[in-house]
Amino acid sequence: MSLTNASPEEAARAAKISSRTLATLPTTARNNALDAIHDALAAERDSILAANANDLELAKKSAANGELSASILKRLDLSRKGKFDDMLQGIKDVRGLEDPELDEGLILQRQTCPIGVLLIIFEARPEVIANIASLAIKSANAAILKGGKESTESFKAISTIISKALAGTEVPNDSIQLVTTRDAVDPLLELSQYIDLVIPRGSNELVSYCQRKAHMPVLGHADGLCTIYIHSDADKEMCVNVVVDSKTDYPAACNAVETLLVHEDALETILPAVAEALITKGVELRCDEPSKTALSKHLPQDQTSLLRASTEADYTTEFLDLTLAIRTIPSTPSPVDAAITHVNTHGSHHTDCILTSSPQTSTHFSNGIDSACKFWNCSTRFCDGMRFGFGTEVGISTNKVHARGPVGLEGLMIHEYRLAGQGQGAAMYGGSGGKGFRHKKLPLA
Amino acid sequence: MSLTNASPEEAARAAKISSRTLATLPTTARNNALDAIHDALAAERDSILAANANDLELAKKSAANGELSASILKRLDLSRKGKFDDMLQGIKDVRGLEDPELDEGLILQRQTCPIGVLLIIFEARPEVIANIASLAIKSANAAILKGGKESTESFKAISTIISKALAGTEVPNDSIQLVTTRDAVDPLLELSQYIDLVIPRGSNELVSYCQRKAHMPVLGHADGLCTIYIHSDADKEMCVNVVVDSKTDYPAACNAVETLLVHEDALETILPAVAEALITKGVELRCDEPSKTALSKHLPQDQTSLLRASTEADYTTEFLDLTLAIRTIPSTPSPVDAAITHVNTHGSHHTDCILTSSPQTSTHFSNGIDSACKFWNCSTRFCDGMRFGFGTEVGISTNKVHARGPVGLEGLMIHEYRLAGQGQGAAMYGGSGGKGFRHKKLPLA
Repeated sequence: MSLTNASPEEAARAAKISSRTLATLPTTARNNALDAIHDALAAERDSILAANANDLELAKKSAANGELSASILKRLDLSRKGKFDDMLQGIKDVRGLEDPELDEGLILQRQTCPIGVLLIIFEARPEVIANIASLAIKSANAAILKGGKESTESFKAISTIISKALAGTEVPNDSIQLVTTRDAVDPLLELSQYIDLVIPRGSNELVSYCQRKAHMPVLGHADGLCTIYIHSDADKEMCVNVVVDSKTDYPAACNAVETLLVHEDALETILPAVAEALITKGVELRCDEPSKTALSKHLPQDQTSLLRASTEADYTTEFLDLTLAIRTIPSTPSPVDAAITHVNTHGSHHTDCILTSSPQTSTHFSNGIDSACKFWNCSTRFCDGMRFGFGTEVGISTNKVHARGPVGLEGLMIHEYRLAGQGQGAAMYGGSGGKGFRHKKLPLA
Repeated sequence: MSLTNASPEEAARAAKISSRTLATLPTTARNNALDAIHDALAAERDSILAANANDLELAKKSAANGELSASILKRLDLSRKGKFDDMLQGIKDVRGLEDPELDEGLILQRQTCPIGVLLIIFEARPEVIANIASLAIKSANAAILKGGKESTESFKAISTIISKALAGTEVPNDSIQLVTTRDAVDPLLELSQYIDLVIPRGSNELVSYCQRKAHMPVLGHADGLCTIYIHSDADKEMCVNVVVDSKTDYPAACNAVETLLVHEDALETILPAVAEALITKGVELRCDEPSKTALSKHLPQDQTSLLRASTEADYTTEFLDLTLAIRTIPSTPSPVDAAITHVNTHGSHHTDCILTSSPQTSTHFSNGIDSACKFWNCSTRFCDGMRFGFGTEVGISTNKVHARGPVGLEGLMIHEYRLAGQGQGAAMYGGSGGKGFRHKKLPLA
């Protein structure tokens, strides 16, 4: 791992070369490197949190001036309860994953192999460095990390520790490169001859920018506009738990709920309890007319004054904050189809959830929505690589190719074909030569 | 299937809408549609070949004027021995594939699902219409086909027959749309809100153009610069068979060999027999100095006069014709590493082959090269979806994500996650809440 002042092109070329070396290292060498990283980070927790505190202090000033969003500020905080431990556990989880390999001994072999060189661009989220470094080493990909200026101190502290830890292992130094050069993003996004995949982690603006500018594939999601639909037959207590968790567990996250759709028959039976719990947790509710009317009738006086009227824009806004848009779904002709249409046209194809006691209704909803993750009776916050059991994650993808949903190790792998023969030509086979193929079934991964 | 004069945007929107319907059709309905297409095309072989003959006649004039390349001309010819039968067989093979589905019954399910809407842009190759229509229907993707002007007649003949065949099935008419509007390519490549994946089939220029312009992922390869390396211990007769087949079976194909690397110790022992067989088949050899000297010594007088001196540009040229560039690989320090370096720097990461009697040498070569397909002792022409046993193919990909090598049904699928719970929130789990996950292993596809 090297903190480099090399030009983007030099860094990318060095990464490409080291990626071929990394691809030939045995599993043990890569696992040893992961152990070294884990232990070093655990030992240096205090110094990292101190560096992070410096970043936070500067960021708070920027946020106060309106130069930095509150959600970036939240993501920057590495001292948030459980975050550092989750980061360490992620490295252990990655180490424990089976090495991604396929069958041997067939004439035609499909072998899993690393993609090559990854470019990771991130803002805030200092834990991403450890996540990505682990996954890159485990998957034998080289990686170039480009951090945002708001996490400079945390970035330097973590990377110096990882770099020292790696020095004692067989993993080549150029395998993980940290680019701090200003304005390196644009040239890096053009180096498709060296860089195979871009993974941006950060604001919608950052991801959209990479998607527009990159000359290589981009893995990720720009928006996380998640929706929950409360059907008329849903369990009230379940609705309270799931909606409150989805909104308040970590509002700055992409998998937090932003829009609540409510069947009109549930406006007076279920919604008031949900709204009361949300308002108690400090959530601002932006309601359409029917939901506002129902809540005004059923909520305590001190809460109804906090209700806001929604605008159409609220239903396409990722608040990333303690704000929730509420819309009523008419009971005729088909409430589920109306909810599906809302999700497909207003959502971001990330994670959407239905609350219903009917398996049929849940399946109807899930078949109809075009989302990477389709949830039934549980919090949208479960959309996460660690929670899905993938170890840590490189991100959550709303792409329709390669990887979709939370992406772990598998998303950093691709395959190659190896064909071994005894001098055969193709002319003797098929329509042109007449000889048929005996196709043994290939285990496709 | 509809031959449409709708605007690109109308066509794309209609395809997007029908893709959601298509995704819910049962397997039997889609298989019936494939049978109908197969039988109709088989019954109308003569009328299709007549239309194709008209295209060919026009194309020959354009080729004579230098307006059309000879390789496009070859790809346009549907009467080439075996081509029509292979096209029909491809439909049958696709029908026989297992439907792409995964496990059921787990709390977290990963389900295979269609990508959505494909845009297929092709020049010449009229059989692509049948290939792609079959794969799209089988995989429940909607598809927009945009053909080149050189195959207009064949395109109309085949599409009219398929369209009639589909009319008697449950597959929605808008699922396969044929766009003939001039200048539709640019607007289609920008409609990322409707189109999920572009698959260009044609010249390097077409593919490169799509890769530069598309706002959505592009699957394919621009170049097919395949290389064969003859190691010193290779079997002479095997070398003759494999190189001749790789070069002459179908020189216009992307998987034909373009560069032959020869270990210097094989220049006088193996190369002369290979060269003699190639020249007899009409192949022009462009040789570096050592290979030209060796061949001048060993070939019959009437053949040596046909040898040409190579230029550096010949080693980065995809001839798509009966022309082969030959380069000598020095025996020291490491011939295999020198061959690897040549392939990685001059090739196109498509299909590369080593001829050697040593499994170790073959593995060394295959580990070192960064190619989608790595062959040992067999023709590069085997790089093909039909020959690999995937039914027909949508193309051959040199991408490093999603699909690499020949791409069949699997490349047109992606996955979604479904999570079913009983009201759980995320706050109680992990670093923040303390409760651990019991991760059952997911069968990842």
